[in-house]
Formats: sequence, structure tokens, C-alpha cells
Amino acid sequence: MSATAIPIAHRSATLLNALRDTEPLVHCITNNVVTNFTANALLALGAAPAMVDVIGEAGPFTRVAGALLINLGTPQHEPREAQREAIAAAGDAGTPWVLDPVAIGALPVRTDLAHEVVAQHPAAVRGNPSEIMALAGVGSGGKGVDSTDTTDSALHAAVTLARTHKTIVAVSGAEDAITDGQRIIRVANGSALLTKVTGGGCALGALVAAFLAARGEESPLTAVTAAHIVYGVAAERAAQAARHPGSFAVHLLDQLSAITADDIDADARTRFSAAETALSS
Amino acid sequence: MSATAIPIAHRSATLLNALRDTEPLVHCITNNVVTNFTANALLALGAAPAMVDVIGEAGPFTRVAGALLINLGTPQHEPREAQREAIAAAGDAGTPWVLDPVAIGALPVRTDLAHEVVAQHPAAVRGNPSEIMALAGVGSGGKGVDSTDTTDSALHAAVTLARTHKTIVAVSGAEDAITDGQRIIRVANGSALLTKVTGGGCALGALVAAFLAARGEESPLTAVTAAHIVYGVAAERAAQAARHPGSFAVHLLDQLSAITADDIDADARTRFSAAETALSS
Amino acid sequence: MSATAIPIAHRSATLLNALRDTEPLVHCITNNVVTNFTANALLALGAAPAMVDVIGEAGPFTRVAGALLINLGTPQHEPREAQREAIAAAGDAGTPWVLDPVAIGALPVRTDLAHEVVAQHPAAVRGNPSEIMALAGVGSGGKGVDSTDTTDSALHAAVTLARTHKTIVAVSGAEDAITDGQRIIRVANGSALLTKVTGGGCALGALVAAFLAARGEESPLTAVTAAHIVYGVAAERAAQAARHPGSFAVHLLDQLSAITADDIDADARTRFSAAETALSS
Repeated sequence: MSATAIPIAHRSATLLNALRDTEPLVHCITNNVVTNFTANALLALGAAPAMVDVIGEAGPFTRVAGALLINLGTPQHEPREAQREAIAAAGDAGTPWVLDPVAIGALPVRTDLAHEVVAQHPAAVRGNPSEIMALAGVGSGGKGVDSTDTTDSALHAAVTLARTHKTIVAVSGAEDAITDGQRIIRVANGSALLTKVTGGGCALGALVAAFLAARGEESPLTAVTAAHIVYGVAAERAAQAARHPGSFAVHLLDQLSAITADDIDADARTRFSAAETALSS
Repeated sequence: MSATAIPIAHRSATLLNALRDTEPLVHCITNNVVTNFTANALLALGAAPAMVDVIGEAGPFTRVAGALLINLGTPQHEPREAQREAIAAAGDAGTPWVLDPVAIGALPVRTDLAHEVVAQHPAAVRGNPSEIMALAGVGSGGKGVDSTDTTDSALHAAVTLARTHKTIVAVSGAEDAITDGQRIIRVANGSALLTKVTGGGCALGALVAAFLAARGEESPLTAVTAAHIVYGVAAERAAQAARHPGSFAVHLLDQLSAITADDIDADARTRFSAAETALSS
Repeated sequence: MSATAIPIAHRSATLLNALRDTEPLVHCITNNVVTNFTANALLALGAAPAMVDVIGEAGPFTRVAGALLINLGTPQHEPREAQREAIAAAGDAGTPWVLDPVAIGALPVRTDLAHEVVAQHPAAVRGNPSEIMALAGVGSGGKGVDSTDTTDSALHAAVTLARTHKTIVAVSGAEDAITDGQRIIRVANGSALLTKVTGGGCALGALVAAFLAARGEESPLTAVTAAHIVYGVAAERAAQAARHPGSFAVHLLDQLSAITADDIDADARTRFSAAETALSS
């Protein structure tokens, strides 16, 4: 089998092992609702999170981190300036970074910030359909932090964003879609209970950063997809053990720790298509 | 049976269904200790929380939200100004809002803020007995965030506040008391374990906002009471499954999701009295 | 048996009971990742936490608190100034306070702040080996929030710090070490799962403050050691019930509530040595 013929499920499983072996340092500047859950998700997975959101520290820390997460959920003045500082340092040091444009659209501060920083070469953008559409300049944003659009309706915006900014764009929904502007990979793993736990999407953004930090010779597209598969498979297993959101969140953290490369190989559900089809539809 | 003869338990059960059907957008500007738990409690219940605490965004967001929660637990400069901005927008747009005057009394910043904003027409005020007494200008506040007074000792203050500000005042304790200044409804549901989970009271304030957003033709008094009944019944069920605070908090979130209108009808424990009796005692 | 011959395990057990009887008010100005978990750990244990991190309130509140925790995990401008205000008030009012110098070393804002405030007479300093070495001016700090050094390698730094600042220094690791500059007490209780829960160390810093508030006639060395023993025994019991970090964190809170003085007496594993041996090695 040639290298390119290795299935995405198996590449993802291998990256999970690589991540646990290297314990990448993931610098998160995220919103004040989900810092705890995000850090715990990264720790459970096997990464080393650090939430350095202070002006004067964010830049230096990004230079030594394996990856950076920029989540716009609560962009107060100081974390916002720390984010700008970190993104500048990431560009300078070559640290891959992820943009999670939470609830952009109607909210002016984060919307302006998202448009400003998306031009500064994020390695990946992750959001729900309404957020991805708002970032591409189409649609009007969702309902608060919730999407009012479907994954399919955001595919055109996702492919356009990926091509414009030479980045990977991931759209989260009942089915996730990840694109580099040429191909689209859909990931069907996951659980509806993720929408009933605050930070269910934000933690996925952090996993995207962790897998980018651990990707080695794999492509960014593969790394971002691996994050979605691993998170989705862990969520499915958590949903088998828990029917309600309190215990689901606990089991999700447990499963991020318990899940093995073999589980990923066995349970990943993906399909590929050409991005061109999204542009013409 | 005439409309007014429908028991409060049944009205509360009906409002729970209405809330889940409409998934009201609840704008929370709350303290940095409980943002996560509050958002998860609202999600579990069936509402759509959004924690927009940024200057320049708080006002616009309140205009589209179903209700607003103002919790004074950690009133740093930026969230404090965001709260002022949101309350002004709520007054302008007619968005009902809830004041939770956490730990006022001895702490000067939040005490001044509470007295300033209570005059701006909150739909409801929720606090422990010491907080309600401090807001009414009697008593000296509790011990940190804990009450040193009983529900009964705060009834006079609650009724006075309700009449002065034409609002609903809810006093949380071993038994809760809710008043519109004319009637007092006592709710006996709940669990002492709520005092061993941080944000046990703060999340109730968020539920009050959610029920105000979903109240339809019901009175604010009924909506605030429904929030207390639903939260108390969920807490009782959680306490049946968990003896200690870590697992109790998990079960509480589960029960907020699992609880049905029939459960509310069956388990609500309330009694009514005239507010006048509190003033004369 | 003379008073001084009472074993540390039994003294710790007695202090646990004293803490629960007095419910000391513990003022925490800690990082925004762990406020919720820290407050819940203190509540579960039996203390009364209050997270007062606002300029203009932090000083007055420290004056009435039983102890103060200063954790440098996310030192943004306002909490940083609130910390300075609280430390000044602690010095004035005689409130014992604990310094947790999270991730100092490479990060400039917190490193400068740690060196500034350690000179203001903390009752105790708690950190991982890399943090204690960085505070003593040796080593270069760890990897983000994680230590890259062992407890033993930090003993020289710990004893030096304790002597220089007349304080208790606690080094957390697979085995903890607590010193007053003369003696070293090692505590072998604990669980590796604590490193997989964010705030696993930060919550211990809060327990140190709680036991200092409740110490009565016991020495600060005994109080700090009691916090480590109680936390370690609770963690061991949690790890018997849970193999993964999500459920471990829930069980840890449960065990902080369930654990009894008899459990401490039975399970504490400690050993003593002279500090001089650390200096000469």
C-alpha cells in the first residue's frame, strides 16, 4: 500500500498515538465559560494545555508552544489584546494556530476581530455552520452561540474561506465537514449530546490545535480530520454510557483518556468528496 | 376550573414544556466562578444560554435575548460596564432581567452597583436572605457568599423591595419564598447539597431568567416560582442518587434534563400566604 | 504521650475536624481556569470559599477572611491588582496567605509578581518542583504549567526559600515535601490522576489556606502538612473508584466530603528528615 493509500481512520489512529507520545504544549486563549472543560479535555487526551491569556505573556508563550488556540467566545479587552499578541508571535515563530470564531455575525467586537485575524494565516478555522458563513461574509450568524444553518449549507463558504486564506476549514454539525479547499472530508462520528454541554464545540477546537501540534509529516487536513474523528468517537462512546448532559460530559473526558488507536481504526466513519461540487451547487 | 384556579404546580409543569419548546435565548453576565455550571444548567433544562460579557456587545445582545441575568458575584471593571450596558438595553427593548446581588452588604463595589441597578426595573431579584436584607437596607450582609439569616427573617425586606421596585423578589433558603409584594409563595423543594456546590444559587438565578423568557401569558410571579419548583424538584432527585457534592452536581444537571412536567406536577410542594402578614410580624 | 509526640497523621485528622467545625472563610484570588473546581473542593471539604478578585473589594474582604490564596495562574491586570491589594491587607490584618506561583520561570508578568510578593510574608508557598526552583532563582521553570523537575531536585531550593522568607514551602510531586527550613516532612499520599485534572495542584493550594485558617494552636508546618495528607488520601480513594480523569475529578470532590478523621489516621503516609540534609546534598 502506498503512503497516500493509508485510510484516514488509520492515519488518525497513528496521530493519536503520536500525540500521546509527545504531549504537545497547547496554548489556549479561549472564553471564560469553557477554560476548565477545554483544559480537562486536552489533559484527558494526553496533551499539555496552558491558558496564558495575559498581555506580555501570550506572545512569549506562543513561541514555545506546539500550537495555539484562539477562541472568540468572550473577547474582553485583555484576552483580546493577548490574542493579537499571540497571533503575531505565532506568525513570527511558525506556531500553527486555530481560529474558533464563536458567535460571530451580529456581535460587533468579535466579528471585527475575526475578520482581522483570519487574514493572519491560521492553520485551521473551526466553527458551526452559521459562524463559518458569517466569516465568509454570507448569512447573518446564528442564534447566540447556536447555529441556525446546516453543515451542507455552509460548504460553499467553507471551501471559499479555505481557498482565500490557504487554510483548513472545519464545519461542525450533525455531520462535520473539513476542507482544504480542494477536498472535503465528512466525519459522521459524534453525538447530539455535545450540543447540550457548554464548550462541546470549543473543546474540539482545542483538539484541532493539539493534533496540528502532533501532526509530524501528516498534512494539516489529516490532522484536523483526526481531531474530529477522535472527538466524535469519544463522544459516541460517552453517549452509550450516559443519556443526560451532566454525566455525558464526565464520560466524554473519560473516553478521551480511554480511547485507543484501535478504537479509532474500528469506529471512524468518513467519506470524501471534491470541493468543486460544493462550489457548483 | 377557572384559569386562576389552576394550581401553581401545574402551571409550572406547563411552563417547563413551553420553555423546552421555545428554547429561549438567555443572556447571562455572571461571575467567573460559575459561568460554566450556569451555562450547563440552562442547556440541560432546554434553554439557550449565551455569556456575552464584553463592552460593546452586551447591549446589542440583550436586545435580541429572551431574558437577561445580572449576577454580581465577581464585578470586575469590564463585566460591570457590560452589565450597565445590558441593563440599559433591556430597559429600552423590554427584555426582562434578573438581578442576583451576590454577597452584597460588606463588599463596596457590588453593593453600590446593586443599589444603582435595582432602581432600573428588574423583573425579578433573587438572593439568599442576607443579600435580600442588604439590598433592602437592613442587616449587614452574610458571611462571604453565604447567608447568616433565615428565609423568614428576610420576608419583610423581600416584600418591601417588591413593592418599592414593582418587582418579584425571591429569597432562597431551606424553604424558598417568592413575593410580588402582595402574595408570598413558599417552595419547599430543594436539597441542602445545593449549598455545597458553588453556583448552586447562581444557576437558579439563570433559571429564573429562562422562565421569565418563556412565561407567555403567565404572570412574572408564576414564572419565578416555576423556576424555583423545577430547580428544587431536580435537586431532590439528584440528592436521591448522590450523597456527596461532586456527583450531586453531575446528577443535578442530568435531572434538569430528565425531569418531566409530570414530575413537577407530582412533586411540587408549595404554600401561599398574604404578604401583609410579613409586614406586620 | 507529650503533645509533641502526637503523630502528624493524628494532628491532621484533628485539624480536619476543626476545619469542618469552624468552616473558615477562605478568600481565593486564583486563575480563571480553576475558580469553579477550587471553590467546589473547599465546599466539599467543609470550608467557605469566596472568590473576591475585584479592585476595591479584595482588600476589605481579606481583613475578614480566615486565610487568603494568591494563585498566579492567569494574572490579568485586574486580578493582579486585586492580589496586591489583598496581600497588603493580609499583612495589615494578620490574615495568613498562601502563594501558588503557577508556571513562573519563563513567563515575565507572573515571575516578576511572584518575586515581588514572596517578600511580603506569605504563611506558605506551594508549587511544583520547577516553580519552587524558579522562585528560588535556580532552574528555568517547567513546561507550561507542568514540572520538568522532581521533588528531590527542588528540596535545596525549598529549604532556602523557607529560611529566607520565614515561611513554609511545599513541593508537590509523586511524593510531596513540606519544609519550614528546619524539618522536611514527606507525604506519599496522592494519585497520578491529579496531574490529569486541571487545577489538581491549584485546589491543593486552596486547601493549604483552609488548614492555615483552621490551625488553632498547631504550627503552620503541621497545618500545611495536614492539607497535603487530607488531599492525598482523598485522591487515593477517588482513584480507587475511577480510572479516568473525568470521573476521578467527580470522585475527588465526593471524597473530600466523605473522608473522615479516622480515614486520615489510618491512611496517612509520612516521613520526617532534617532540612540540613537537603542543603548539603
